[in-house]
Amino acid sequence: MSKVGVIMGSKSDLPVMQDAIDILKGFDIIVEVDIVSAHRTPEKLFDYGKNAHTKGFSVIIAGAGGAAHLPGMIASLSPLPVIGVPIKSSNSIDGWDSVLSILQMPGGVPVATVALNGAKNAGILAAQIIGSHDSCVLDKILIYKEGLKQMVIKSSENLK
Amino acid sequence: MSKVGVIMGSKSDLPVMQDAIDILKGFDIIVEVDIVSAHRTPEKLFDYGKNAHTKGFSVIIAGAGGAAHLPGMIASLSPLPVIGVPIKSSNSIDGWDSVLSILQMPGGVPVATVALNGAKNAGILAAQIIGSHDSCVLDKILIYKEGLKQMVIKSSENLK
Amino acid sequence: MSKVGVIMGSKSDLPVMQDAIDILKGFDIIVEVDIVSAHRTPEKLFDYGKNAHTKGFSVIIAGAGGAAHLPGMIASLSPLPVIGVPIKSSNSIDGWDSVLSILQMPGGVPVATVALNGAKNAGILAAQIIGSHDSCVLDKILIYKEGLKQMVIKSSENLK
Amino acid sequence: MSKVGVIMGSKSDLPVMQDAIDILKGFDIIVEVDIVSAHRTPEKLFDYGKNAHTKGFSVIIAGAGGAAHLPGMIASLSPLPVIGVPIKSSNSIDGWDSVLSILQMPGGVPVATVALNGAKNAGILAAQIIGSHDSCVLDKILIYKEGLKQMVIKSSENLK
Amino acid sequence: MSKVGVIMGSKSDLPVMQDAIDILKGFDIIVEVDIVSAHRTPEKLFDYGKNAHTKGFSVIIAGAGGAAHLPGMIASLSPLPVIGVPIKSSNSIDGWDSVLSILQMPGGVPVATVALNGAKNAGILAAQIIGSHDSCVLDKILIYKEGLKQMVIKSSENLK
Amino acid sequence: MSKVGVIMGSKSDLPVMQDAIDILKGFDIIVEVDIVSAHRTPEKLFDYGKNAHTKGFSVIIAGAGGAAHLPGMIASLSPLPVIGVPIKSSNSIDGWDSVLSILQMPGGVPVATVALNGAKNAGILAAQIIGSHDSCVLDKILIYKEGLKQMVIKSSENLK
Amino acid sequence: MSKVGVIMGSKSDLPVMQDAIDILKGFDIIVEVDIVSAHRTPEKLFDYGKNAHTKGFSVIIAGAGGAAHLPGMIASLSPLPVIGVPIKSSNSIDGWDSVLSILQMPGGVPVATVALNGAKNAGILAAQIIGSHDSCVLDKILIYKEGLKQMVIKSSENLK
Amino acid sequence: MSKVGVIMGSKSDLPVMQDAIDILKGFDIIVEVDIVSAHRTPEKLFDYGKNAHTKGFSVIIAGAGGAAHLPGMIASLSPLPVIGVPIKSSNSIDGWDSVLSILQMPGGVPVATVALNGAKNAGILAAQIIGSHDSCVLDKILIYKEGLKQMVIKSSENLK
Repeated sequence: MSKVGVIMGSKSDLPVMQDAIDILKGFDIIVEVDIVSAHRTPEKLFDYGKNAHTKGFSVIIAGAGGAAHLPGMIASLSPLPVIGVPIKSSNSIDGWDSVLSILQMPGGVPVATVALNGAKNAGILAAQIIGSHDSCVLDKILIYKEGLKQMVIKSSENLK
Repeated sequence: MSKVGVIMGSKSDLPVMQDAIDILKGFDIIVEVDIVSAHRTPEKLFDYGKNAHTKGFSVIIAGAGGAAHLPGMIASLSPLPVIGVPIKSSNSIDGWDSVLSILQMPGGVPVATVALNGAKNAGILAAQIIGSHDSCVLDKILIYKEGLKQMVIKSSENLK
Repeated sequence: MSKVGVIMGSKSDLPVMQDAIDILKGFDIIVEVDIVSAHRTPEKLFDYGKNAHTKGFSVIIAGAGGAAHLPGMIASLSPLPVIGVPIKSSNSIDGWDSVLSILQMPGGVPVATVALNGAKNAGILAAQIIGSHDSCVLDKILIYKEGLKQMVIKSSENLK
Repeated sequence: MSKVGVIMGSKSDLPVMQDAIDILKGFDIIVEVDIVSAHRTPEKLFDYGKNAHTKGFSVIIAGAGGAAHLPGMIASLSPLPVIGVPIKSSNSIDGWDSVLSILQMPGGVPVATVALNGAKNAGILAAQIIGSHDSCVLDKILIYKEGLKQMVIKSSENLK
Repeated sequence: MSKVGVIMGSKSDLPVMQDAIDILKGFDIIVEVDIVSAHRTPEKLFDYGKNAHTKGFSVIIAGAGGAAHLPGMIASLSPLPVIGVPIKSSNSIDGWDSVLSILQMPGGVPVATVALNGAKNAGILAAQIIGSHDSCVLDKILIYKEGLKQMVIKSSENLK
Repeated sequence: MSKVGVIMGSKSDLPVMQDAIDILKGFDIIVEVDIVSAHRTPEKLFDYGKNAHTKGFSVIIAGAGGAAHLPGMIASLSPLPVIGVPIKSSNSIDGWDSVLSILQMPGGVPVATVALNGAKNAGILAAQIIGSHDSCVLDKILIYKEGLKQMVIKSSENLK
Repeated sequence: MSKVGVIMGSKSDLPVMQDAIDILKGFDIIVEVDIVSAHRTPEKLFDYGKNAHTKGFSVIIAGAGGAAHLPGMIASLSPLPVIGVPIKSSNSIDGWDSVLSILQMPGGVPVATVALNGAKNAGILAAQIIGSHDSCVLDKILIYKEGLKQMVIKSSENLK
Repeated sequence: MSKVGVIMGSKSDLPVMQDAIDILKGFDIIVEVDIVSAHRTPEKLFDYGKNAHTKGFSVIIAGAGGAAHLPGMIASLSPLPVIGVPIKSSNSIDGWDSVLSILQMPGGVPVATVALNGAKNAGILAAQIIGSHDSCVLDKILIYKEGLKQMVIKSSENLK
């Protein structure tokens, strides 16, 4: 069964990354969470990236802030799709550094980047990737999207 | 068999988007190319987004520039993973508009954004998404990554 | 009689958009408010944009934040003048994403963009559009502008 | 009959602003073109802004670059809807100065801002404003939008 | 005797502009303060700019925020040196709009721009302009600069 | 008689700075041009700044690009008004570094900043500073401004 | 024995710069702290920069905000490696001015720039520079890096 | 004897990085050049970073563009001072991505960042680092700085 790895550069990133974990659990997808710092635990980064595809992961979500190298380095090491979450951490210049150092990967090594602090969307995107070949998960996404619609319709009715 | 849809807002985006088509063909993945303008053919956009998952597509790659709404609107309509390619078109402010109007999607509706003009990476990412559940494609990605490495090693040797 | 539609992507946009509603009511112009999300209720978006000009609206004001596609998509669907209000929502990068994804529309599909969070000006602009062919509303705008002047003159006198 | 004033800060802005003139002529709308510099001919600016609504104009399109004060000052002086075209002139910092000094008007004095160098869209927006109360012009806009669609469909067919 | 005019677009700018007033009074320079809004009192703007040099002013300091047209329009109308103070008002995008719409004046019409919210420096600059031909004021500036130095030396000693 | 010092960090800045020299000569103001590099000739910088006011200068115009410290350091050393010209040199990031490192001076030490590459306006501003106490120069500025106006009026007539 | 000079433009920079002092003391490296303002004490700046290499310093760390000239001017005067710390001071535009006016030094005069408010890293970099020829300090850096790793591993274990 | 490693992410970076090589050779410092791609040769990156300090290197200069992870990853792996050169490569957004992804390193892992394309300064900085404990190199730097001064003085004389 499909499994998603959610990693982050520091424990302080957890409040943001929790959104990815929660949404994936809501889709009944197995999640493994870990802290992997590109700059402080490069050996662990290396090991994680090299072996993720042999350990049952199908997607990796990596969140980091500032000069955010974690998503790109995992993408360098792993053949799996890697989703990058730019985090507006305290040491970031309004989030621009986080966004650009994740998004602007060179040709050959993509990172699927979501919005600043967009961990929730990273979780949904991981589910969509699994859903692209697992009709059961695809159905859950269709239901989730229907739910989004109903919430807007209800808030529209409340307005009137 | 998995099929990738590559769409763009205008024919003038084709020189950039061709990179995605070429790389996917290199991975022997079926590609269907079309022009779908969010702003000029909204009905076609609607139809494309609503039905892509029922027509055998597993991933959609959408490229657009300026106020680039195509990737996000397809993501709104389709349960499939959507990869957005921000294009630095002639009417763009250094590409910032293209990047931000694709990347900064609201919670609930992700677009997997790649680098500015990064259509090649969009193609690789689509292959990785397929590879996450198709070991044959995964192997091709591992070979592709090995090829990248060999090119660097060769250019390093040439330097010496 | 002229009617203005005021729509927004989410109920959380209402505190900003209320300024447009208030100023239009001050000009005795009929306003209809609704929540229409480009990303969560695309069918409603489609219906709203396609039919607004047949339902007595003469102007549409659309507010949205982040990757803000609502104003541009309404402009894609409707022949009416569409005024876009970029909102500095919580998920926005200092408002730049909201501004650029509304302002930078491609040739053929304009959105009349006002300042970040400038819903009040959106309301005035809608009144000016009506006033361009309705001398009664034009007179009210002249009076409104005179009022702005008197306030400055009074605050200038208070200073001395 | 409705008349649109197209003004610009310098003759060097004409190549950009010509797009507005051409599209309005295509809609059979009367256009009067003039050069009015906020910084070099302030008296003319003052006279133009104060009297435009008494001279048969229903909309004013003003283009300027750099610290672009022309659209905002006309909006200060006239009760008519004013459309601002930020121009990426040679003395501009990548167009950001033009955009921000037109877009970010204070509460009370809106400028309907279009994309950088978006004079074509300024012309269409002016036509839409007239079309909001002139069904003949509205019909032309519907035909224009249909034309945009057909061009995309044709280029899509050519692709295949 | 030399007189400096300090004007601002709105009473809400006074807390920032007070720094200019205070520093000029500290140099025993006569200051006249007024509120002149380019967008709400264009006639007053016109009158002020046209006549300042005939009313004994030698320098004008103008502060404004957002699409800040006051300094540039005064510079358009007056032959006097005009110092512009970009204000980071509540409706500003991090101050960038204020800075660029004051700084980026076209060739022919300069505004002497100081730092964002830099009203204190605007006051000093006005004093320096007067001091360039009034040795009494020049001496005061030399004393002021000596005072700045002594404060740093004292805080350096306190550190040790 | 009043004298203006025009200095620049490198000979490569001369094509931009020539505009300041030319306009000042047009106003019959004495100009002395020199190359003073804050980073390569700090002793000369120090000497120039310390003594300019004793050598008959009334204004200093300093142009520099990139991390542009020349105008601010001269302002640190001299009691005279210093006009800074941010230059978009080849090593500059689109001119932003030049603009910000000249404009954003701390409280106590102003630099009168003009537009990017705005050496012409620096020259006019220097003339206006002299004109603020020299009615002969003031008259020349009034004539210059009248000339600007006539050029616009002529190009407006040519248009028709 | 190696000695590091830590200087800053104002006492208000001390809370940020304390991180550099603390980390250097943790490496048992001698630190001398001083306040040197490029703009308010240019003579002291000059003296400090000219003589630091003759007074036993091997590295200088200089912190400043806004138009931050201190690091670059010290680098102009001294042959020693100069580390610049851009400070997000209250008068800074989101830190961009501080970063660009320290980073973008012209060819010939480098400043080793660290992250915004990155005084801790400035301290570590100074230690690394000393460690590049002092194996005792190099060993301490290796231990420090091992400590960083252990902290991440511990926080990773706590997560599980 | 001290040795400097100059590495870059791609052969296309060589024209920029050659400046560092040339200046170091001018200081008679041994240079070893190599191509090490963080994203395409992660194993080589790992090996290079882990062992550089045991192979006689005292400083490493690393240049990269776009999402530039090479300097930061080497700094993660090596205890040596690492100098980062942001390169404005073809896939970069005006160089901002290169600058921010090198500069904004997290606390604990500094990169000594120089200006965009500032490889020459990276070479000088490496020489200064060696010069901080090697008086022979320090003397060469003093001579180099004297040479810079003489060039400016000569160009100043040519001007007159």
